[in-house]
Amino acid sequence: MPSSNLTMNVGLLGGGVVGASVYRLANSQAADLAARTGVKLAVTRVAVRSLDKARDIPAEVLTTDAQSIVDDPSIDIVIELIGGIEPARSLILSALKSGKSVITANKALLAEDGPTLFKVARDNGVDIYYEASVAGAIPLLRPIRESLAGDQITRVMGIVNGTTNFILTKMDEEGSSFETVLAEAQALGYAEADPTADIEAFDAAAKAAILASLAFHSRVTVDDVSREGITQISAADIASAHAMNHVIKLLAIAELLPDNRLAVRVHPTLIPRSHPLAAVRDAFNAVFVEASAAGEVMFYGRGAGGLPTASAVLGDLVAVVRNRAAHTTGSQESAYAERLVAPLSDTSTRYHVRLEVSDRSGVLAAVAQIFAKHAVSIQTVRQSGRGDDAELVIVSHLASEADLAATVADLRSMEVVRDVASVLRVIGGAV
Amino acid sequence: MPSSNLTMNVGLLGGGVVGASVYRLANSQAADLAARTGVKLAVTRVAVRSLDKARDIPAEVLTTDAQSIVDDPSIDIVIELIGGIEPARSLILSALKSGKSVITANKALLAEDGPTLFKVARDNGVDIYYEASVAGAIPLLRPIRESLAGDQITRVMGIVNGTTNFILTKMDEEGSSFETVLAEAQALGYAEADPTADIEAFDAAAKAAILASLAFHSRVTVDDVSREGITQISAADIASAHAMNHVIKLLAIAELLPDNRLAVRVHPTLIPRSHPLAAVRDAFNAVFVEASAAGEVMFYGRGAGGLPTASAVLGDLVAVVRNRAAHTTGSQESAYAERLVAPLSDTSTRYHVRLEVSDRSGVLAAVAQIFAKHAVSIQTVRQSGRGDDAELVIVSHLASEADLAATVADLRSMEVVRDVASVLRVIGGAV
Repeated sequence: MPSSNLTMNVGLLGGGVVGASVYRLANSQAADLAARTGVKLAVTRVAVRSLDKARDIPAEVLTTDAQSIVDDPSIDIVIELIGGIEPARSLILSALKSGKSVITANKALLAEDGPTLFKVARDNGVDIYYEASVAGAIPLLRPIRESLAGDQITRVMGIVNGTTNFILTKMDEEGSSFETVLAEAQALGYAEADPTADIEAFDAAAKAAILASLAFHSRVTVDDVSREGITQISAADIASAHAMNHVIKLLAIAELLPDNRLAVRVHPTLIPRSHPLAAVRDAFNAVFVEASAAGEVMFYGRGAGGLPTASAVLGDLVAVVRNRAAHTTGSQESAYAERLVAPLSDTSTRYHVRLEVSDRSGVLAAVAQIFAKHAVSIQTVRQSGRGDDAELVIVSHLASEADLAATVADLRSMEVVRDVASVLRVIGGAV
Repeated sequence: MPSSNLTMNVGLLGGGVVGASVYRLANSQAADLAARTGVKLAVTRVAVRSLDKARDIPAEVLTTDAQSIVDDPSIDIVIELIGGIEPARSLILSALKSGKSVITANKALLAEDGPTLFKVARDNGVDIYYEASVAGAIPLLRPIRESLAGDQITRVMGIVNGTTNFILTKMDEEGSSFETVLAEAQALGYAEADPTADIEAFDAAAKAAILASLAFHSRVTVDDVSREGITQISAADIASAHAMNHVIKLLAIAELLPDNRLAVRVHPTLIPRSHPLAAVRDAFNAVFVEASAAGEVMFYGRGAGGLPTASAVLGDLVAVVRNRAAHTTGSQESAYAERLVAPLSDTSTRYHVRLEVSDRSGVLAAVAQIFAKHAVSIQTVRQSGRGDDAELVIVSHLASEADLAATVADLRSMEVVRDVASVLRVIGGAV
């Protein structure tokens, strides 16, 4: 590595758990970072909301004026860890416009308005890197963008939310109800007091949009993502998956349809226990990528936490520093493929439909007739219980969301069907 | 992506399975590659051993004179897929010296003489990329080098040989002997007629050297790697691992020791069934990385095959093309950390020692005394069988290779020990 007297100053927006970890790592790794980049790096300023809170960051670098960091001509690179749409967007845009490169972990902003940020970065000849925004510490976005750049990605399926994976793992392993495990997760700090963003899959949907944009070189925002959370998953669903040797995971799925449109969705999904994603337990994340030439590739690791996220930010920092030192930028985002996102009703998958039915002869025949009427082909049927507890679990072959919805509507109107207890999607393997 | 009239010509050395896949992909993906790089790419020449063989490559681009491609001033980038040390090394060196960037999948050459190649590339301001040399299609080397560049890697453990993983998976799942499964693997084409390079772990040792060099920024060659193959693994070993809820995998391990030296070795290893590497079946590869900040990260996918390897080569090609178009190079290899490799005797691990013993009272006490004499602490003991079939399986706590070797030597000289049937290493989790 050529030695050099080049110095670059970094401004940090946000001094919370991740910010403090970035600050600490950047200092403790300073000698290694200099050896790896040929540039001496210094985090010279950190913007925080309040100066009163005790922090592991020296008081003299702190400020409450984030804009002053963005405007500071001595700062070369801005790391944005504030989160949310505003003021993060305005700060990032003004940093880019003043020729600073930006590293951000802001999934909400990227999923809503990524293309604007990418365009401003490109117009100003600077980088915007965001590895930490999806699946925390896992090197994922750059491998998809760069290592698989010569391949054709056909599908991306990810466990990208640690809270819901923790809950589903506990439900699977302990047989507990959703409510019990959610309370446990909150007590352990794995779920927030208001868990909506996680359990209703808003967080995973933002990440799905980012992954889809990147994998398919198209513009996909969070509004394009069909979203279903895990609040309706019951112990009975988990038990039924078990009986099929499957597990239920909340998957963010982005796939290329035969008509060249994209399907982008987040929903609980039954996957075979032998699938590599099935072994991803607790708060771990993993993203499974299918590509024409590479075949199946999976990336696994920690999706959150101060140090893991800081690792991803520092990886981006090394890349940005090298690019600036070479007076270039990394590979730019592009949406050249301009693929459209299909509505959910146009996508197809297999379904696991769990019905509570009257324990009467002829029920299965009547139910099967409804499926046949809507051209939803049945793969397996499992009946259990008797009397008031009679349960019918039907797994279909591939069918469109529209056909399945029509089937379910008809099932609900049947006198012998007491309840369509759940409708879940099934992916991978033979049942 | 800026449109451009820039064209780059690629010369391919080697027209076998991987070469033909690279040729085909580069052509079928030409429009996407141009969109992703801003450069029009053409594979204009392909060197092959014989012009007589039928190939999916047009005759007019074929030549048997590899040197003429390397010397051709119209060629910008050379892809080397010949393998082996010579003439690959001379061809690569002369390509680099004439200002061409090089992409290679040549693990043997990199493990023996990587630093020479890296230096010549650096001196000539060109790139040498080699993603395909370890774990085929899995984006691995660039994520380690680039995405984890801000972190401190402490250990890398990889299943990097598909043939041996296929054999061990079958032995585990079917209870068959090594010889039976090897014959099956040969019949299926998963193992070669002469399987030595795979089953004696020469292939995995080369990859261990490449991974260790990269992860620890130090010069590690294949001569530094302690190597033990899988030919001694018996159905009894697999059954014993099973009884402990472990599986046996051939792991390439590179780790940072507390004294800042490195331990680099390849050997069959018992790992808990709950470990992410345990779920890697058949010919799949995976590399598990532990880093100070990121925690545990794993990369999974296909380690071999024409198309998967071609995917990795094309990912490198996109990177090299972008670098050349920007008149820069990627991050260079470096050995700035200059860590030394410790001899095997200095490394520590846990051991699984399987003994055939006389079925006599007092045997366990006598055996335990030998372990105690060499300060090898026993974690668990399992006795089974009786009479001539009596078996004693001892799992130790962490102990040095030197202490374990002394223990085994003493055990062999005991009258009550009929045979030290196997000594295997154990990693991860509680037993």
